[in-house]
Amino acid sequence: MTISRRPGRRPGSADTRGEILAAARRVFAEKGFDKATVRGIAREANVDPALVHHYFDTKEGMFAAAMQLPVTPDQIVPLLLEGPREEIGERLVRLILSVTSAPETREPMVALIRSAMTNQQAETMFREFVTNALLYRVADRLEVPHLRIEAAFAQMFGIVMGRYVLRLEPLASADPEELVELLGPTVQRYLTG
Amino acid sequence: MTISRRPGRRPGSADTRGEILAAARRVFAEKGFDKATVRGIAREANVDPALVHHYFDTKEGMFAAAMQLPVTPDQIVPLLLEGPREEIGERLVRLILSVTSAPETREPMVALIRSAMTNQQAETMFREFVTNALLYRVADRLEVPHLRIEAAFAQMFGIVMGRYVLRLEPLASADPEELVELLGPTVQRYLTG
Repeated sequence: MTISRRPGRRPGSADTRGEILAAARRVFAEKGFDKATVRGIAREANVDPALVHHYFDTKEGMFAAAMQLPVTPDQIVPLLLEGPREEIGERLVRLILSVTSAPETREPMVALIRSAMTNQQAETMFREFVTNALLYRVADRLEVPHLRIEAAFAQMFGIVMGRYVLRLEPLASADPEELVELLGPTVQRYLTG
Repeated sequence: MTISRRPGRRPGSADTRGEILAAARRVFAEKGFDKATVRGIAREANVDPALVHHYFDTKEGMFAAAMQLPVTPDQIVPLLLEGPREEIGERLVRLILSVTSAPETREPMVALIRSAMTNQQAETMFREFVTNALLYRVADRLEVPHLRIEAAFAQMFGIVMGRYVLRLEPLASADPEELVELLGPTVQRYLTG
């Protein structure tokens, strides 16, 4: 007996979620993050938009799932904002080092960055997601100029690339707490200085 | 009349320098920066080692020429060390923004970084060059721990990638002097803090 794998307008079969994510990857790659819509992804997946909403609350959440990112902006922003404002630099450094320490959460992010650095479509998609869904939202909530949040992003982007992709020593083997102490004040100054 | 383009043991023909550089690129890619030698590159180019030294003072200089890098470590280190120590952060930020501002000097560096991020051999070559020929030398001259120079490298690596490759706004259009003001104190703290 052969089971057809062809996608149809099924209301919730085992791989509907996977089909929506595959459609999302195609639509994000083609249109970028900003111009992609839940409706357009539903059309590409041949399902009802309500079903897409059933699986994914937001376009940001769908992007994170499609790219296998370990965290969504909706999870990061509250983590950053809770706790004392004068420790936000330390919290952000610790959060990023923690999210990137395990290969299974780090590798999808690194894959996305690699694509963004070598492919024009992926670059647009990455840029729009990082700025509009992540950096500008954090900056606006903190009432920090966008340039300052991007300076903080640049610092941590360079650390993650240097530590895990280029594997510069002693950075690659440095104790996370030593990095929190070294980098926390930098991020703190950008965000509140 | 046909002129033979086949390389031989010629003492200084018009393209001997180019042949040495092509040989250098092959040897650096295969062996990495550390294990490559002037002698090995001369052998690969089928010329006398003395001729390689005639064109290139050092292995670092040959690497910079082979990769079409606009500056060699031998040029950067004195620039950083001359002038007041309390302005070294500002000088370093200004130097990097200046070297990366023109596409013709920036693109070879970006090409090297792209390769390092997607190719294992290129990554080894890049890591060895950046650490041993550049960062550790600057750090040792300044008597700064290697981790601190790598934090400064990470900051500026992230800025150059964010500004020119990922093209995040407002970073991509920011005035260089605004960036010097924002980033200078970060680098200064890493190098003297």
